Amino acid sequence: MKIEHPYLLFLGDVPDALAAKTATGIVDWRKDWCAGQLRLPGCAADTGLPDISIADAKEKGVKTMVVGAVNAGGRLPDHWVASIVSALDAGMDVASGLHVRLGSIPDIQAAAERNGRQLFDVRLNTEVFPTGKGTKRKGKRILAVGTDCSVGKKYTALAMDKAMNERGYTSSFCATGQTGVFISGRGVALDAVIADFISGAAEWISPETDENHWQIVEGQGSLFHPSFAGVTLGLLHGSQPDGFIVCHEPTRTTMRGVSTPLPTIQQVIDLTIQCGQLTNPDIQCIGIAVNTAALDEEHAKAYLAKVSADHNGLPASDPVRFGMDNIVDRVSAEYGAP
Amino acid sequence: MKIEHPYLLFLGDVPDALAAKTATGIVDWRKDWCAGQLRLPGCAADTGLPDISIADAKEKGVKTMVVGAVNAGGRLPDHWVASIVSALDAGMDVASGLHVRLGSIPDIQAAAERNGRQLFDVRLNTEVFPTGKGTKRKGKRILAVGTDCSVGKKYTALAMDKAMNERGYTSSFCATGQTGVFISGRGVALDAVIADFISGAAEWISPETDENHWQIVEGQGSLFHPSFAGVTLGLLHGSQPDGFIVCHEPTRTTMRGVSTPLPTIQQVIDLTIQCGQLTNPDIQCIGIAVNTAALDEEHAKAYLAKVSADHNGLPASDPVRFGMDNIVDRVSAEYGAP
Repeated sequence: MKIEHPYLLFLGDVPDALAAKTATGIVDWRKDWCAGQLRLPGCAADTGLPDISIADAKEKGVKTMVVGAVNAGGRLPDHWVASIVSALDAGMDVASGLHVRLGSIPDIQAAAERNGRQLFDVRLNTEVFPTGKGTKRKGKRILAVGTDCSVGKKYTALAMDKAMNERGYTSSFCATGQTGVFISGRGVALDAVIADFISGAAEWISPETDENHWQIVEGQGSLFHPSFAGVTLGLLHGSQPDGFIVCHEPTRTTMRGVSTPLPTIQQVIDLTIQCGQLTNPDIQCIGIAVNTAALDEEHAKAYLAKVSADHNGLPASDPVRFGMDNIVDRVSAEYGAP
Repeated sequence: MKIEHPYLLFLGDVPDALAAKTATGIVDWRKDWCAGQLRLPGCAADTGLPDISIADAKEKGVKTMVVGAVNAGGRLPDHWVASIVSALDAGMDVASGLHVRLGSIPDIQAAAERNGRQLFDVRLNTEVFPTGKGTKRKGKRILAVGTDCSVGKKYTALAMDKAMNERGYTSSFCATGQTGVFISGRGVALDAVIADFISGAAEWISPETDENHWQIVEGQGSLFHPSFAGVTLGLLHGSQPDGFIVCHEPTRTTMRGVSTPLPTIQQVIDLTIQCGQLTNPDIQCIGIAVNTAALDEEHAKAYLAKVSADHNGLPASDPVRFGMDNIVDRVSAEYGAP
């Protein structure tokens, strides 16, 4: 699967910014691939890219319209179809991270056919996986986990990969969600895999590698989220991380989309170690990544210092705001310099 | 989906008895629906039914050949295809619990078409589920969990359902695997659901019901199995059990299909409570079901007494050998008489 850029990011009319996290993630890591965003009336999300029409996008040489927003359950609202058909009629491919197959919608399939364009369903895997085996593989792995969904696990993994490369480690980012696949050009949307093969797919995503190569694996869900914890556990077992980073959003009180209260960071550390030891007895927490976007800089720094002090001095940072150097320091202290 | 009986059970040439557990389970609970078994040379499994040919089966009025054996990963060996085609040519439907879609194999699809017969893929759900919500529902639920796969979770649930009905409770068996679906005529093969919807499917399987109705939910996998723990956790969260029964096979040392050591019963109790409290704070263990087939009666009774004594007097039984009366007693003591 090769998705051509430049991209036009379609946001639909989603009711909040989190629902457009696919688009936001692409802009944060591949802004130079993005020509603009297309929003419908009422859209509450904004990537900061210029709002452009499909005609503008065609003018700018856009190759692919990316459906960069998702509603609960990953369905495609009927009133988004016309925009997708227009993009195909303008000669673009369309790529989507929704659960519904684009080609299953007759108007979209017909438009793709009459224009000879491709439809990419990043979230629907055609790959066949073996079941997970739990056997220890060569290479080093770091997994991002979280107190909730949508707390910056992908950002943390991408920032960690970037920081480790800058410090002289050899590392690679392993995508497990649709945005990660758009950013890296490979990987698997793990929540779209058949349940029996979750850990098998996670093993495929982070295969045996050189003893000194670090795979930085994007996390999914939370062991404490009543909708998605099964995916999280299968990913933990399959990726058999040596180290994990707990991602947290300090202003949230209930888990995303449900009324379940948020767990504490310590609960996540404890349960991740307890479950992760099944496939890697040496698993340990190597840092805490906090999304401090809701705090000013002074409060953010104070919060991070307190989080670190409250958790045995584990390094804490906001990967977007303050980088990952202190967590790379911990990697160096625990596993050696590059 | 309505699968017509009588059944002919096809076992292929699987290398051990466990691989034919679908067929064995059907025979144990619906023997009067089964006309016989069909085995290929080298088959190491035996349901105890008479070995009959497809011609014999046709003579006996068989309506459906059930592919009642499964190999690792659920694939269909090429040398099984001829038997399936013969059954279709003899006028039977064919039902399978494998991961591969019967109709995806051209010879099978062609035979079904030319004979006007139906192919049932019990393990491939076409049902669309919402994501799990974790909201507490009315009604009472019991889930079978295990120290491993294939340790009698389905038997335990079926025996518990039967025993509770006999003692005057209103209860129903909720199937989560292919054999359970063959036995009950409804349900979902949970390991075939898309990963994002595991707990949502489990909520659909055990929906809101009368406050005094007991749903006895078939378990899947083990929280300690590196291949399937994600399915187990999603089922635990979605079924939000009030009580659970730990199923165990005392002679096993490693988890089925992998080299991971078996957890202890106490580890399973502790982790099930720890994780299960997310959607039901009052979750508790109500009994231990041991598959004592490898022990003689005296050793089996001694083992059960020791298991009970080692776990705070929790009732322990072998559901096949000694019934579930002592565990129903515990239900009565904890939740009241019917």
